[in-house]
Amino acid sequence: MAHNFDGFFYPKSIAIVGASSKEKTLGRELMKNLLNFGYNGKIYPINPKADMILDVKAYPAVTAIEDSIDLAIIMVSKQFIISSIDDCAEKNIRNIIVITAGFKEVGEEGIEMEKLLMKKISDYGMRMVGPNCMGIINTKEGVMMNGTFVQGEPNPGGIGFVSQSGALGAAVLKILKLKDVGFAQFLSIGNKADIDETGMLEYWRDNDDVKVITLYLESFGDARKFMETAKTVTKKKPVISIKAARTAAGMKAASSHTGALASADTVVDAIFEQSGVIRVASVDELFDLAKSFDRTILPEGKRVGILTNAGGPAILTVDEAQNSGLNVPVLSEATQNKLKEICVPEAAFSNPVDVLPPATAEIYGKATEIMMSDENIDAGIIILGPPLMHDTLEIGKHICEAVMKSGKCSTVVLMSQDDIIPKLAEAVPGHPPIFNNCEAAAKAIGQMYKYKLYKEKAEGKYIKYTGKKKIVNDILKKYKGGETYIAFDDVVEILKAYELPIVESFFAVNVQQSVDIADKIGYPVVIKVAGKKLVHKSDVGGVIVNIKNLEELIQAENKIIAGLKEKGIDNQLEGFTIQPFIKGGTETILGVMKDAKAGHLVAFGMGGVMVEVMKDVKFKLLPVNDMEAEELIKSVNAYRILKGVRGNPPVDIEFVKGNILKLSQLISDFPEIEELDLNPFVFSHQADRSKILDARIKIKL
Amino acid sequence: MAHNFDGFFYPKSIAIVGASSKEKTLGRELMKNLLNFGYNGKIYPINPKADMILDVKAYPAVTAIEDSIDLAIIMVSKQFIISSIDDCAEKNIRNIIVITAGFKEVGEEGIEMEKLLMKKISDYGMRMVGPNCMGIINTKEGVMMNGTFVQGEPNPGGIGFVSQSGALGAAVLKILKLKDVGFAQFLSIGNKADIDETGMLEYWRDNDDVKVITLYLESFGDARKFMETAKTVTKKKPVISIKAARTAAGMKAASSHTGALASADTVVDAIFEQSGVIRVASVDELFDLAKSFDRTILPEGKRVGILTNAGGPAILTVDEAQNSGLNVPVLSEATQNKLKEICVPEAAFSNPVDVLPPATAEIYGKATEIMMSDENIDAGIIILGPPLMHDTLEIGKHICEAVMKSGKCSTVVLMSQDDIIPKLAEAVPGHPPIFNNCEAAAKAIGQMYKYKLYKEKAEGKYIKYTGKKKIVNDILKKYKGGETYIAFDDVVEILKAYELPIVESFFAVNVQQSVDIADKIGYPVVIKVAGKKLVHKSDVGGVIVNIKNLEELIQAENKIIAGLKEKGIDNQLEGFTIQPFIKGGTETILGVMKDAKAGHLVAFGMGGVMVEVMKDVKFKLLPVNDMEAEELIKSVNAYRILKGVRGNPPVDIEFVKGNILKLSQLISDFPEIEELDLNPFVFSHQADRSKILDARIKIKL
Repeated sequence: MAHNFDGFFYPKSIAIVGASSKEKTLGRELMKNLLNFGYNGKIYPINPKADMILDVKAYPAVTAIEDSIDLAIIMVSKQFIISSIDDCAEKNIRNIIVITAGFKEVGEEGIEMEKLLMKKISDYGMRMVGPNCMGIINTKEGVMMNGTFVQGEPNPGGIGFVSQSGALGAAVLKILKLKDVGFAQFLSIGNKADIDETGMLEYWRDNDDVKVITLYLESFGDARKFMETAKTVTKKKPVISIKAARTAAGMKAASSHTGALASADTVVDAIFEQSGVIRVASVDELFDLAKSFDRTILPEGKRVGILTNAGGPAILTVDEAQNSGLNVPVLSEATQNKLKEICVPEAAFSNPVDVLPPATAEIYGKATEIMMSDENIDAGIIILGPPLMHDTLEIGKHICEAVMKSGKCSTVVLMSQDDIIPKLAEAVPGHPPIFNNCEAAAKAIGQMYKYKLYKEKAEGKYIKYTGKKKIVNDILKKYKGGETYIAFDDVVEILKAYELPIVESFFAVNVQQSVDIADKIGYPVVIKVAGKKLVHKSDVGGVIVNIKNLEELIQAENKIIAGLKEKGIDNQLEGFTIQPFIKGGTETILGVMKDAKAGHLVAFGMGGVMVEVMKDVKFKLLPVNDMEAEELIKSVNAYRILKGVRGNPPVDIEFVKGNILKLSQLISDFPEIEELDLNPFVFSHQADRSKILDARIKIKL
Repeated sequence: MAHNFDGFFYPKSIAIVGASSKEKTLGRELMKNLLNFGYNGKIYPINPKADMILDVKAYPAVTAIEDSIDLAIIMVSKQFIISSIDDCAEKNIRNIIVITAGFKEVGEEGIEMEKLLMKKISDYGMRMVGPNCMGIINTKEGVMMNGTFVQGEPNPGGIGFVSQSGALGAAVLKILKLKDVGFAQFLSIGNKADIDETGMLEYWRDNDDVKVITLYLESFGDARKFMETAKTVTKKKPVISIKAARTAAGMKAASSHTGALASADTVVDAIFEQSGVIRVASVDELFDLAKSFDRTILPEGKRVGILTNAGGPAILTVDEAQNSGLNVPVLSEATQNKLKEICVPEAAFSNPVDVLPPATAEIYGKATEIMMSDENIDAGIIILGPPLMHDTLEIGKHICEAVMKSGKCSTVVLMSQDDIIPKLAEAVPGHPPIFNNCEAAAKAIGQMYKYKLYKEKAEGKYIKYTGKKKIVNDILKKYKGGETYIAFDDVVEILKAYELPIVESFFAVNVQQSVDIADKIGYPVVIKVAGKKLVHKSDVGGVIVNIKNLEELIQAENKIIAGLKEKGIDNQLEGFTIQPFIKGGTETILGVMKDAKAGHLVAFGMGGVMVEVMKDVKFKLLPVNDMEAEELIKSVNAYRILKGVRGNPPVDIEFVKGNILKLSQLISDFPEIEELDLNPFVFSHQADRSKILDARIKIKL
């Protein structure tokens, strides 16, 4: 069940523990904000040294208040925090915001202090926001709570914003009006000792006041829980996130191919992509998109109409629209004829429509209406360059009214007229999103369209596969604790137990054995050097393929041995692996790595010895459902080869998918597998000729 | 020699042909702008119906003026343009700006009219800006000319801006102050019938008032001339450009691999990259970067120091800095100790330095000075989040003064305090660039650092190679006009004439011939289907490699013939090409395509049958010098393979380069070659085993 945080966002009474009359204190600033924004409930300033604070009756402690209290915002000095919490418990206050800083963020002593605080909170059965945060906002009429201490006027709207950085939240609050961004609810989560982004996702999923969820994150509280929760939210309402501190992720150096292909941000990208969270790179992008979701509807299709009084900006818009996956189709003849009736003859009518600078407010409005009602158009971008001799605000109003009538996705761009944006926004209730640059509008519609496709996409199914668990169990039992590579023979058995098609392999400790094996399985064969320390076989010249006869086989083994001697590592040689040589097919890599926080990920892409050069590999968190497995396959270049190019017959993608799902099951059943490389995994158009030619497994017990 | 446009930008007297007193006319707006901005020369309004215009004496015609006139700005109705030009000629005015619209941009009739106008201009030996433009600006003290009709106040600075869109120019002019962007000179080039972007590049190259050149282009006047001119400018001062209308470039559908790999924007990217012009995608990016070049110096290295009062924005800055190729090193211990002396103990000292919200203006300034003087720092980004209880402007001044003292590249970010930017800019003469978001500042420094590397890069040399021109000439003579593919035998001879190492090839029309050839060259061999219409041989199963004996050879030919029969195209078969089978090596593609406007381009990258899937191909305009050839090789993934991976020995890159330079010479000598594919061109670590395995040439006579 979702947490209910209504007590935080819709409190009927708030105690401000640490309220103050003193200039330049947080306690005064927060009181002022609550009062000025017009909070609709009761405010109880707590301060043992004051009777009144900013004309509101003050109390020496929460316990001195007679009424019941829904929310306590605490900003006393660190040493008084615990006693304040005790007081709140005595007064039976369930919801606590701790603004006071000096906890986890200042090191050892603070960490201890935060643990103590958190223990109190959970012992008392309270919920807490913070510590080290900036407060909370709800702009809803009838609530009107600005429980933060920062400057700036909360602008109402449908956006929920969680900020892990107080300062960034403060910066954003300051420009809301200028950028036409409207918040429903805002929360600075600080050190998120208790309530974190995942809790907020759950809460806002079921809160109708919040239409769009935005996040500024520097870390995940619990990466896997975040993903699982986000999956349940994103089909209902869009979630857009910045994940900062990209390079700080710092992944463990990996010895596997799969691990080496992952960048510091791979896991974050996988989490967002798989849970449908839209990741953006900057604060501007975050709110450009959020306000679009908030102030207009999703486009039905990807065909966008552009109307302008200025050629250059319209061309830039076409470029960005196409870049964002949208089309800019020619308008119907009927539409063009209607436009010709009202515009000057030199105007452009096909799309973009250029009404030219002489266009009045009436013409602009009428032309917008005509364009938006064209059947070929799913969304509109109406651009207004600085008009020479007309009033921007007046034209803006006509545009807004026209697009609102259309009932289609639309945006308005006031090029370089930033000062008009808040005025127009205020003048037209229910206005569409207003931008000051055209590229941002086109980009936002492109992302909205992608979100629409995501929302409509069928849900995937988790396919249960029953592997021979006992076999794997028995093998793993042989290994002791710590991190170990599994012997190749055991790897073969493990893969067979889950019907992953590892090529037949035989081990030979001398030339005679090699010859016997090759005779048995038939030429051509492949030989590979074997030895626990010889992990990257190709690098030491330890793989020779397409050996066609006895003579070549002996030559090959001698060549490998000579090569090892030259490198002075011939003492690492334990023998040779002999396999039939598989001709043709497409080399892929299928692998697994484990992230310390997010757990296992599967990787798929172009394989073979060039895997690190190609870098054609994508990741998903495990387990994957059938849809996710299919998306993974389709997201890499290798897919285009598997589908069949230049005369090669296509590979059955369902078969590829089946192998990914079996691997997913193997990892679910045996999470002690830390790393796994199937490389190359050669797929042929004949499923029974598709083979894993080499494999490695590392476990951690 | 560069054109001298001083008459346009530094006129001592201007005639305004079509000046007006009438409200809401361009003639009045332009007069007002000239007067209000404080133009330092003499203004002569020309209007036959007025004695005075805005208190300035008016003349019925330019011929009625007694003084000499440096510049005429003409904005009369279209039908009076020619007679106005005649008047200007009579008065001996050399420099003309035609603002009037209705020429090329309105279609057939306008095109004729523009030709007529241009003929007049060249007959009279005049130079012209426009028609259909917005005017000209020079902000230099002592000139102070705003010869445009748009709103907005030109803000002085070192940027030259050429806009092919008047409306975009107008939008930009309107926000200069808000964004801290300062223009030295501005020109709206309109239809660029005479003066175009290339002329302006030449002019500004040698004009000391312009420190940075910015361009908004929708098309090139002459793409090749642009590139050649830009090359001579970019080593002297930065040139930054938007090239809009990306998809309109509309390249001819190509049948060659090389052509198919080019996107509509490939040519534009190649032109910019090769000439050192920095391409940006949006107007914001254009001026963020331009103002950085203008208002601070180039960073000596890539190590950036970040100072902030807000954690979140600093983290975003680190992300973007690293993303832009910069480092964020730890500050020296000495620096950190100095910072500790002045900041609160909870502050962060390593980098980013976080002085925390309590920091006063003095502390901010002092901390900035300390950080900027660290030896590990080449550039600084000083971020100021909305301060709680201090005055932003005051802190901003201290920051500006501190970074100016440092003599290092630096930027200031006023997060979400847009209103303060113009005030701070005005308060501190010679201030560093001021941004309202931190990502933009980091990105700009990253690009400045790249420009610094470009500027210091050695110039390339054009290597003359003497091919056997006569042989090629004789072959090409055999072909008639139009577009034709060269027969494979001739292709081989052409390549040999320029020492491009095409594999030995023999043509067989029957099985016996095939067998004889294979015996002669020795097994293993490759056979390829041959036939003029059989262009994509792999697609029809027409290539079989590694044929080891007579039996396999006969089998292979039969298999290919059977495949063609199945497809019903066996009548296209003319025989088989037999070649020795080259084992190992790295498959690349080396090719040539021709763009209608920019001429020939060379392409290089991963080759083989997967070339279209890999898309690892980059382009350069031909001819290429040695540096450009090397850059081309290093710009593709194939380079990482050529250098040697996973036990493969490295290929001699000089040898690869030599082949590109020979190809460049071939195309210089025979520009009638329209398309050329050398694919695969297999490079081995032994140069003499590097071979072109297949080749095609199309010529247009």
